[in-house]
Amino acid sequence: MSEAYHSLASKHREIVLIHSTAAILDWDQETNLPRKALNYRAEQLSYLSGRIHQLSTNEEYLDTLEAAEDIGAVDTTQRANLREWRHQFNRSKKLSKGLVERDSKTCSLAKSAWIEARKKSDFSIFAPHFSALLELAKEKSQRWGYEDEAYDALLDNYERGAHTKDIVQVFGEYEPALAELARAAVEKSNISPARDLEGHFPISAQKVLNQEIAESIGFDFDSGRIDTTTHPFCTTLGPHDIRLTTRYDEADFTASLFGVMHEMGHGLYEQGLRASDFGLPSGTAASLGIHESQSLLWEAHVGRSPSFWKHWFPRAQELFPQLLDWSLEEFLQTINRAKYSFIRVDADEVTYDLHIMLRFDIERRLLNNELKVADIPAAWNERFEQLFGMNPPSDAQGCLQDIHWAMGGLGYFPTYTLGNLNASQLFHAATQKEEIQKAFNEANFTPLLDWMKLHIHTHGSVYLPQELMLQASGEKTNANYHLEHLKLRYT
Amino acid sequence: MSEAYHSLASKHREIVLIHSTAAILDWDQETNLPRKALNYRAEQLSYLSGRIHQLSTNEEYLDTLEAAEDIGAVDTTQRANLREWRHQFNRSKKLSKGLVERDSKTCSLAKSAWIEARKKSDFSIFAPHFSALLELAKEKSQRWGYEDEAYDALLDNYERGAHTKDIVQVFGEYEPALAELARAAVEKSNISPARDLEGHFPISAQKVLNQEIAESIGFDFDSGRIDTTTHPFCTTLGPHDIRLTTRYDEADFTASLFGVMHEMGHGLYEQGLRASDFGLPSGTAASLGIHESQSLLWEAHVGRSPSFWKHWFPRAQELFPQLLDWSLEEFLQTINRAKYSFIRVDADEVTYDLHIMLRFDIERRLLNNELKVADIPAAWNERFEQLFGMNPPSDAQGCLQDIHWAMGGLGYFPTYTLGNLNASQLFHAATQKEEIQKAFNEANFTPLLDWMKLHIHTHGSVYLPQELMLQASGEKTNANYHLEHLKLRYT
Repeated sequence: MSEAYHSLASKHREIVLIHSTAAILDWDQETNLPRKALNYRAEQLSYLSGRIHQLSTNEEYLDTLEAAEDIGAVDTTQRANLREWRHQFNRSKKLSKGLVERDSKTCSLAKSAWIEARKKSDFSIFAPHFSALLELAKEKSQRWGYEDEAYDALLDNYERGAHTKDIVQVFGEYEPALAELARAAVEKSNISPARDLEGHFPISAQKVLNQEIAESIGFDFDSGRIDTTTHPFCTTLGPHDIRLTTRYDEADFTASLFGVMHEMGHGLYEQGLRASDFGLPSGTAASLGIHESQSLLWEAHVGRSPSFWKHWFPRAQELFPQLLDWSLEEFLQTINRAKYSFIRVDADEVTYDLHIMLRFDIERRLLNNELKVADIPAAWNERFEQLFGMNPPSDAQGCLQDIHWAMGGLGYFPTYTLGNLNASQLFHAATQKEEIQKAFNEANFTPLLDWMKLHIHTHGSVYLPQELMLQASGEKTNANYHLEHLKLRYT
Repeated sequence: MSEAYHSLASKHREIVLIHSTAAILDWDQETNLPRKALNYRAEQLSYLSGRIHQLSTNEEYLDTLEAAEDIGAVDTTQRANLREWRHQFNRSKKLSKGLVERDSKTCSLAKSAWIEARKKSDFSIFAPHFSALLELAKEKSQRWGYEDEAYDALLDNYERGAHTKDIVQVFGEYEPALAELARAAVEKSNISPARDLEGHFPISAQKVLNQEIAESIGFDFDSGRIDTTTHPFCTTLGPHDIRLTTRYDEADFTASLFGVMHEMGHGLYEQGLRASDFGLPSGTAASLGIHESQSLLWEAHVGRSPSFWKHWFPRAQELFPQLLDWSLEEFLQTINRAKYSFIRVDADEVTYDLHIMLRFDIERRLLNNELKVADIPAAWNERFEQLFGMNPPSDAQGCLQDIHWAMGGLGYFPTYTLGNLNASQLFHAATQKEEIQKAFNEANFTPLLDWMKLHIHTHGSVYLPQELMLQASGEKTNANYHLEHLKLRYT
């Protein structure tokens, strides 16, 4: 290892120490922070961000980076780390301090405005703020540069190396097939309605079930925990400190369970990264689309499967006696019913991606100056009617429902659908191995996890997402396997 | 405010931001940290300490300090802050980097050795480590300098401006009187034994009672919380983020309650400091002896008083029905019984300080080369026999019981007794005011808290501890009021 590379890696380990420290403060803010402590916590976090920015953009950093590049990499891992560090540095440097500050301030105002707008279901409150954020997004994409269209530059924030045109192509094939499949699935669910859960599901019993399942699948509680928050998430506070959160509904134990299965999928990925490379690109997840593939794999492919419940339903019946007169088939029908909904986060597996493609389309038209901010509600509702056959009763249940735009997160949404497609594609590739499929049928998911560790987790960001998909599954991301999976399960 | 002073204060606010960030990591380590995450957490904490050390000892810091000193202070607060900053700087600078590193390493080894030694009750395992720590303590005291004896320099770590000779004098008068009083109190408790608590005290009900009491006394839960840890403590994560911890015994609800009352006393002090001066000396507690006076005030003077229980015992009976056939007098006798014990942390109010004076005496003889480390067990047991009339059955229940020495904390112990004396002295001074005494008798403790805020909390470290005691109570710390209090309650 060259001295310059070594010194550059040390700088990054320092940055990662600060970054993971900030993650602890964030986690604590979500789970524990007393009300009046918010302001000082914001000061602490802003100080840490400032240090990270300073350490990762100063002259000394650039000198070390250039020296390491001049000598070059000795192996694949070094090459990947140098590639990602250069990429991050260039992107940071292209934004002026003024732009970053304006961006942060605009986001903060937009978030407050969005909360009020959603509450009052009045898009006009949010519109001027979103216009300002859109202008900033355009300015950033110009500074960062792009190949085909401005959206490329934003997409790269969340999905390294992705091109809008590729997503347009994949989504273009996926959407009509999915829309048709969703119609059939919803109709099927309507014809023979599923039984509803009844009675009280004590939180303490839900916690027992969630913990037993997470442990049996392989989440390491010596390197992680599960806590309670309003909005579930997974965060990494250190190489052996991966924390999931969930929320409990005492009328429906599956809400917290599927929440845990989802976040645990993220957590297993984080626990499967190389601890020795913690925080270096080679020890960091490849992209949001890959990350989401892991959460959906455990939530949907495992957690909603007959094999899983053949094993776990008797345990659920022990903990929740009101399930004793349910058959396994009834229960599977209940957790796998298809239904059109206005709200993305309430959507089932089969209708979910329709919500995403609607958003992707609107974002792209905004960036390409084909749609004005003021016209979003009309465009949303029109498209929604086409896809779902119903009209959102209000903007709160339409274009104002998600926080992403209020945080300037243009380019984020498509990674959810990439996650769905990747999950099915990787699941298919893994279960081509007979012993994995056989174990899966017996509710033994260890071989499946081992396959993911070997083909996805351990590589970190050494390969770009599409290289990784190609290596692991033999194909770039496409919709075939996911459509196949949905067809099998829902129609 | 001079520009130099302003710039110095800014530097300290930055240091305090890092310091309070480290406190969050520490708190999280005690309450939440997964087992395997310990090593990385230690790296994060060590990085933050390094930054604090660097920022508070570099050339730029010294230049700013000198510039601010040259211009001088414009008021009492500035004068105090400059005094304390200079004092801290000088003490830091007098220790070489090598010495600090040796100290930290020796402590870390000593702590492991102490754990093993206590487990096996074998002092010889701990002795060589403690000898090394003692040599380091001597070296530090030489470097720091002192007036009369080496112990002065160590004491100053915990009790600013205290002199060993003053403590020797106060303890010298206190000890024989206390020893006699303890004998009488223990005899009295033996003659008419108190009733024992019986039955099961559910943790959830204990939490309700603790919370109601802490709220009613004035602990602000919008600026703090109570959590569960093995070893109770109070820590400050920000000006409005004061966190207490306690532990629960399902056979004795008073254990968690008095734990909460004690830590809440610390917490009320922290909540009473000037938030605008957070982390500056003027916004920081004056000393451990003053801090402990606040915790003991609420635990002992309030929490074990008849006035308090006249109000709260009925509520305790509601929550714990097995208390319904108890009289208030029986209960008061139970929580205020005197009993000799081998273990300091199990000691009652009346015998507690005997444990401390024994330790102080041994520490001082070690520093003055009048006692060898190898002779500690014999010296301990001899002195213990004199004070308590019984012989520790093992070193685990004798000289190996406390962690303080294993952490290099020579000079810490006397602050516990200063706390006891200060608590009684301040309680006496406050209740000289008729309206405070009257409210107290009616279990209204707000006027007492207000008095403490005004006379103690709000001053931070503007005055040295003994100046503060003189101002607040009219006298320097002495044993008269505490002896009076114990006599009244126990004989």
